[in-house]
Amino acid sequence: MQDALIINTRDLDFQLFEVLQAETLTRRARHADHSRETFGAALDTAHAVAVETFAPHNRLLDEHEPQFDGQRVSMPDEVKQALDALRGTGFLAAGKDYEWGGMQLPSLISFACLSLFKSANIATSSYAMLTTANANVIERFGSATQKRKYLRALFEGRAFGTMALTEPQAGSSLSDLVTTATPNDDGTYSIRGSKIFISGGDHELSENIVHLVLARIPGGPPGVKGISLFTVPKFHVNDDGSLGARNDVALAGLIHKMGWRGTTSTMLSFGEHGECVGELVGEPHHGLAYMFHMMNEARIGVGLGAVMLGYRGYLASLDYARERPQGRRPDNKNPLDPQLPLIEHADVRRMLLAQKAYVEGAYALCLYAARLVDEQHTGESDAARADAALLLDLLTPVVKSWPSQWCLEANSLAIQIHGGYGYTREYPVEQFYRDNRLNMIHEGTHGIQAIDLLGRKVVMKQGAALALLAREIRHTIDATRSHAPLHAHAQALDHAWRDLSLTVEALLPALAHETERALANANAFLEAFGHIVLAWTWLKQAIVASAALPGARDETDADFYRGKLHACQWFFRWELPRVALMLATLRSLDDTTLEMAPQWF
Amino acid sequence: MQDALIINTRDLDFQLFEVLQAETLTRRARHADHSRETFGAALDTAHAVAVETFAPHNRLLDEHEPQFDGQRVSMPDEVKQALDALRGTGFLAAGKDYEWGGMQLPSLISFACLSLFKSANIATSSYAMLTTANANVIERFGSATQKRKYLRALFEGRAFGTMALTEPQAGSSLSDLVTTATPNDDGTYSIRGSKIFISGGDHELSENIVHLVLARIPGGPPGVKGISLFTVPKFHVNDDGSLGARNDVALAGLIHKMGWRGTTSTMLSFGEHGECVGELVGEPHHGLAYMFHMMNEARIGVGLGAVMLGYRGYLASLDYARERPQGRRPDNKNPLDPQLPLIEHADVRRMLLAQKAYVEGAYALCLYAARLVDEQHTGESDAARADAALLLDLLTPVVKSWPSQWCLEANSLAIQIHGGYGYTREYPVEQFYRDNRLNMIHEGTHGIQAIDLLGRKVVMKQGAALALLAREIRHTIDATRSHAPLHAHAQALDHAWRDLSLTVEALLPALAHETERALANANAFLEAFGHIVLAWTWLKQAIVASAALPGARDETDADFYRGKLHACQWFFRWELPRVALMLATLRSLDDTTLEMAPQWF
Repeated sequence: MQDALIINTRDLDFQLFEVLQAETLTRRARHADHSRETFGAALDTAHAVAVETFAPHNRLLDEHEPQFDGQRVSMPDEVKQALDALRGTGFLAAGKDYEWGGMQLPSLISFACLSLFKSANIATSSYAMLTTANANVIERFGSATQKRKYLRALFEGRAFGTMALTEPQAGSSLSDLVTTATPNDDGTYSIRGSKIFISGGDHELSENIVHLVLARIPGGPPGVKGISLFTVPKFHVNDDGSLGARNDVALAGLIHKMGWRGTTSTMLSFGEHGECVGELVGEPHHGLAYMFHMMNEARIGVGLGAVMLGYRGYLASLDYARERPQGRRPDNKNPLDPQLPLIEHADVRRMLLAQKAYVEGAYALCLYAARLVDEQHTGESDAARADAALLLDLLTPVVKSWPSQWCLEANSLAIQIHGGYGYTREYPVEQFYRDNRLNMIHEGTHGIQAIDLLGRKVVMKQGAALALLAREIRHTIDATRSHAPLHAHAQALDHAWRDLSLTVEALLPALAHETERALANANAFLEAFGHIVLAWTWLKQAIVASAALPGARDETDADFYRGKLHACQWFFRWELPRVALMLATLRSLDDTTLEMAPQWF
Repeated sequence: MQDALIINTRDLDFQLFEVLQAETLTRRARHADHSRETFGAALDTAHAVAVETFAPHNRLLDEHEPQFDGQRVSMPDEVKQALDALRGTGFLAAGKDYEWGGMQLPSLISFACLSLFKSANIATSSYAMLTTANANVIERFGSATQKRKYLRALFEGRAFGTMALTEPQAGSSLSDLVTTATPNDDGTYSIRGSKIFISGGDHELSENIVHLVLARIPGGPPGVKGISLFTVPKFHVNDDGSLGARNDVALAGLIHKMGWRGTTSTMLSFGEHGECVGELVGEPHHGLAYMFHMMNEARIGVGLGAVMLGYRGYLASLDYARERPQGRRPDNKNPLDPQLPLIEHADVRRMLLAQKAYVEGAYALCLYAARLVDEQHTGESDAARADAALLLDLLTPVVKSWPSQWCLEANSLAIQIHGGYGYTREYPVEQFYRDNRLNMIHEGTHGIQAIDLLGRKVVMKQGAALALLAREIRHTIDATRSHAPLHAHAQALDHAWRDLSLTVEALLPALAHETERALANANAFLEAFGHIVLAWTWLKQAIVASAALPGARDETDADFYRGKLHACQWFFRWELPRVALMLATLRSLDDTTLEMAPQWF
């Protein structure tokens, strides 16, 4: 059992440098100091820190989750030690300007580094991920004062960040938030209310915590149009950056989860004593839009976390399948022959191949999303930047939801390959499965992602995003021309996309006039759309592998490309065909769920 | 949160008395003393004991799993109290002869009673389930002495039973067992070897434990043909039934599981000091066949357990969806309107309907299997008894695997409906999910079930079992004639069955000559076959509901039948269509997994 097998580095190189051509990013002014070597050095450092300080306490932290004694939150020392090591590398500001102490790494590379921490220890890495996402909001929308007070502390990890949206009476329904922010004479606001499920909401891992809190300024409009965003530090920050008194933010309790136990999930009380002070971010009543900047980043982060949990389980079960002897071929009844390794059994290979297809496909998707973030910021024209933003907007629900569903399935297959050992806590895979089950829920459930995709993203700007994706998919299909073994896949993808387009056309009238009916099966749309996007992602990988195979360095390298081509084939033969069924049922505007009366249950 | 909502009793009545016509069993001599009233009384007693003594410690036992201090195994007192209450009711011998202190209840009714204990507390109920299954083997194959020594103690719950097959070096590969049984002069055998994953292998819940152990008598044939079965008690039993000295069976350690934590899973050492005495059951070298008597019963029990975990989660999430206000209809943007209960959202109803379709469908299948056990034992002709045995043999892999997969999926949906609360340990559903994940593995993994189904059951007796099932399905299709709304479903089932038959025909040559290739996709066959069987099960329920609806007692009763018809529709529209895809890929003898070389991963 190699507990610290956190990535297939050959695959990471393939994704970054062969598929996404990360090196071309060094041609851009912002990254001009960088090179393949500096990228490699960053990845190597992240890998070493992840393996040496994050991975070793992954199970320990699961078994000894954070405790709250009414005064303070405690957890194993290893968490702080790992985060201190992370701070030391400067990764919290990896993509930031040199002036903030950053490295000006492309998003693609810093995201790839983050993936290694997530793989090694999803719970410990969350504190860092939330901090970066929080800082990005303040950097983009905060006042000069807010930036001065918080940014450097966040980038250096002296303060950690949170996002405080959810309230007990309003889970997914943000329009029902009731936390209030009453203006004070000095321009600050008095915050009062309760938040729940706030990850990293309390701990002693950093000197301070900066909460980004959604609240209503009294007198504002009802619903989501009356929500504003505030910075609310755990400890007040003086103008010179030193810490002042404790703010009136209290930990009301920790939530105990089935997985991902090491990241505190908290109930927070703001202003129990009427003394919680917050500072408005940006304009009043525009808070939700600002927060969605963080939320979208967090959603991509959730997708990546789901991938890495899946990846970790895949590698563990691959290792196990190669080592563990068990049984013989079905046509060999001779019990005196030695047992074969599990991997020799077709059904075990199926479970490995499915995992490979899910996790490497989803990894490619998440890294592509990070590449779009780069394109959005440093793309070579306004049009290229706008296109990247549009495409990312369309794909975000898939990046969040697809890995949450299918890399969880991968974790289930990893358990299955381990047999009885798989469900024991003596082996690592059951934890990945528990950890991963949260991802279909937090930062917007599957149902929310589905409505976002079909009800908003598909129709926004008269379908411009969908048209853009269609062009990208067409490029990929065209690029298969010189790769005969991929023609059948290209045709299948083309067919699936037409099927999807017809379905969207069929749904458009209902989307305009019968929203409830049109969205009733949005979940099936999300699943079908996601599978098509993943098929596309696999075809892109297959083209690169097919082109590289004849010039492979050696047999090991050739085997790697053959594996890519074969996993692509598996996805096209065993997964993509599901899409047609879902789309047909969607086109029929099937009303089975709508018509099910509550009293019939 | 109604933690003790263990069953929809209306559904239980429907399954037993409307679909499976349990009352007709009272016409048989063995059950002549029984009536609808005595059946009802047994069910009521089981329900009361399950709710009052099993359900209340379900979470407690998960949080305080059995501990081994090197001397003894301890666990919360509530487990023994619940099992004492169960003993008091006589349910351990519910189906047994009056002479053994039994009630001569039909299998169907005792199985339904068992389902209530499983729903209330899967871990505590396992001790009882294993004991009954163990006693059944001794009753059927044991010597008069073995019966005298063990049976009454098992039926009265003074002794509990286990099945000790698995060894560390031989998980699913029983032919690689190495535990030995060396004949002693007095006719007993000295047992020596290690067993692993032995459920209920040690505890202090009963005075004694009777292990049924597979071992090899030296000199016997290699492989499965040289395996014999032995009774190995924890404490020797004197001829008068009193307990003697401790046998040489030692607990080497407890296994710590992700779920189902309350049932001890043990590593046992037999004969460490050369003094472990066992008694041969039946003939030498025929042990595996005897053990499969218990194994098949356990497999049906695993299926039922998976159903009840799914059922419990379904009821919890239904309750939650009715109580929890959250959001508004997608076409209502007015935040001043009150929030609606979750159940009003189409996507939540989808998740409830899917759960209902999975758990009530699978419950119907498991109870049908129990009805086949009755038919096998008390059927009105030799032919009827033989047919029932054959059908049960064919269906057992489905009864074991389908609920393990789909009622686990139901548990995932129950979590999803609870949103963030779903993954917290403050709510019950995450435990059901963890508990249920074991079911795809123990008592034969999915992969083993798939090979059993396609490689053995489908082809046995020249396909007689499959032909028999075809006739049964034909009966059901014919019975829809007078129910117009069911015609489309009947047609779909007919079509799916033809598709399956064509697939079997296409696979037969490969099954005979290229076993490995034919079985490479056996898992897909198991899934497709399972979905067809479930569609059939739903159609049977729908026919009964359709016939009863016009004469429903009141609106509540009518709503119940409408719910059944609608869940059937959902299964036929959203689930059955998957089958065609899987069968098409199977017919093509797709070799993607077979061709994937281990070094390509």
